[in-house]
Amino acid sequence: MTKEDVLVLGCGNFGTCLAYHLCSLNRSVRIWARDAAVVESINTHHKNPKYLKDTVLPDNLTGVGPEFNKEMFDSATVILLCIPTQHLRSILEKIKSFIKEEHLLIMANKGIEISTLQFPFEIAKEVLGETIGNNSAFLSGPSFAVEVVQNGLTCVSVASHNSERAKWAQKCFHTKIFRAYTTKDVVGVELAGSIKNVLAIASGVAGGLDYQSNAKAALFTRGASEMVRLGAKIGCDPITMLTLAGIGDLFLTCTSEKSRNYTVGYRLGKGEKLKEIVSSLGSVAEGVPTAKAAHDLCEKHNIKLPIMEGVYQILYEDRDARRTFRSGAPW
Amino acid sequence: MTKEDVLVLGCGNFGTCLAYHLCSLNRSVRIWARDAAVVESINTHHKNPKYLKDTVLPDNLTGVGPEFNKEMFDSATVILLCIPTQHLRSILEKIKSFIKEEHLLIMANKGIEISTLQFPFEIAKEVLGETIGNNSAFLSGPSFAVEVVQNGLTCVSVASHNSERAKWAQKCFHTKIFRAYTTKDVVGVELAGSIKNVLAIASGVAGGLDYQSNAKAALFTRGASEMVRLGAKIGCDPITMLTLAGIGDLFLTCTSEKSRNYTVGYRLGKGEKLKEIVSSLGSVAEGVPTAKAAHDLCEKHNIKLPIMEGVYQILYEDRDARRTFRSGAPW
Repeated sequence: MTKEDVLVLGCGNFGTCLAYHLCSLNRSVRIWARDAAVVESINTHHKNPKYLKDTVLPDNLTGVGPEFNKEMFDSATVILLCIPTQHLRSILEKIKSFIKEEHLLIMANKGIEISTLQFPFEIAKEVLGETIGNNSAFLSGPSFAVEVVQNGLTCVSVASHNSERAKWAQKCFHTKIFRAYTTKDVVGVELAGSIKNVLAIASGVAGGLDYQSNAKAALFTRGASEMVRLGAKIGCDPITMLTLAGIGDLFLTCTSEKSRNYTVGYRLGKGEKLKEIVSSLGSVAEGVPTAKAAHDLCEKHNIKLPIMEGVYQILYEDRDARRTFRSGAPW
Repeated sequence: MTKEDVLVLGCGNFGTCLAYHLCSLNRSVRIWARDAAVVESINTHHKNPKYLKDTVLPDNLTGVGPEFNKEMFDSATVILLCIPTQHLRSILEKIKSFIKEEHLLIMANKGIEISTLQFPFEIAKEVLGETIGNNSAFLSGPSFAVEVVQNGLTCVSVASHNSERAKWAQKCFHTKIFRAYTTKDVVGVELAGSIKNVLAIASGVAGGLDYQSNAKAALFTRGASEMVRLGAKIGCDPITMLTLAGIGDLFLTCTSEKSRNYTVGYRLGKGEKLKEIVSSLGSVAEGVPTAKAAHDLCEKHNIKLPIMEGVYQILYEDRDARRTFRSGAPW
């Protein structure tokens, strides 16, 4: 295999940690940031000033951007997109003339586009065409960025309709301590990866309301069952929910206070208002917009999922968290 | 419905808490103990001196035993067995002449009989005959006893091949805060309920070795996948692993330090020897014998499950826990 040349787009927590991991595998890695100051900092101080601030990035990681240009893409074999889902479409529009069928496109974002209710795979197909969309791969699973840069054992799912591409993506990342497992169920992986953020908010609310272990285990299970039920409506394999991208990631976000979504829920459970929480967090946890998208998706497919609906009502209809989750309702 | 008369057999943590719950539903409830002092204490002090010691039991809970007699059973409509799996056969042998087809038999034990590799359902069929065995129901799910007596929200699975009997068992227990969900997959429920104790030991070992959240989420997921794979060999529906008796109970035992099995694993991970742990715990956690039975069951069905095998090697072949779980092997 020729040496992979990976262009990472997006310099948030996850983009940064994956770039870090790929550098450790001796790949040639460049990371694009939309902020010139971040590019500059990476190239001169080997630090990302906004995310994973304490991590010294490898010398061989090059910052590029904020403009895109053809040369940037021509030299790359792999394009790894770590762009928030709500911005994915606009970024793809900007770079689509640079993307070739030979590129391995890997997306590592989770979520549903609110305006269209589309998953990243559908957005990619719409903007880049059927062939490139179908050849894309999607990385998801239980992977806190801070643990990845500490070389903590991490296992993820890599999904693609094209199994050769899935194997290629797996090969890009796989090591003894960062393991990638392939699957064909792209939609299942994407659904689970987005919905788990909504369920993590629910889990946080239960934590904030001092529910005990039996109740939390039940909430976890009934939440996974909502994933399965919504998945059945849009063609996912229920078994995907038993994988790293499904219950693995759900387990992570529901059990750790490192999860921003859990934290939002916890503070809601303690009686704070969403506005206060969002303003003190400095940004919106992904589960907040996804709760809206999931609600709309359920309406579109005419399915009632009480836990997700409960979270939606707390976030968007100003329902009291204690009242909504009373006696363990809605799970 | 005529008032249920429930005879609970077994006065451990789980038998005691289920008797407590049933009393709160205004059932007539008697609890059998093999120790006359326990029977005496329940009837005079309304306390179980060995388990849930701090709980004041309801006035209307009557202790019976330690001898069995026909009258004890004749007046009962429901027999609820909360007997450790390794003792189930001998108890069933003793009471089989008292059991009638009209009785609703519910078993709430988890585990595999080491000497035969049989699950409770198979033992019941062998001792009590096909009809009574097939009509039996099995209760399982994430339910720490101490939370049940505190009226903490608890959700469980109730399995029976006979769906009328499953509904009857559900009706016996179901309230707003103790919810029972029916299923037909008896073997799946039993398999999950036993194996999760082995996986909880694995989870504890990982905790003792200071593995981080990504690794624990991966272990949880790969563990569930071992349940699915073993289940496939013995005719379980993989979807059962997505239910309360599956990932629900696995979640509970893998995330809480209240779990005895987790504690055994944690201390093994910290370098203690099994003998020391068992002697200071005062009794054997169920996952320890089950690890042996699961190992033998895997050999019988010619299947290799690395996490369960790792636990077996640590427990029965004196393998070093740190070495066995190095770099996240075996999951």
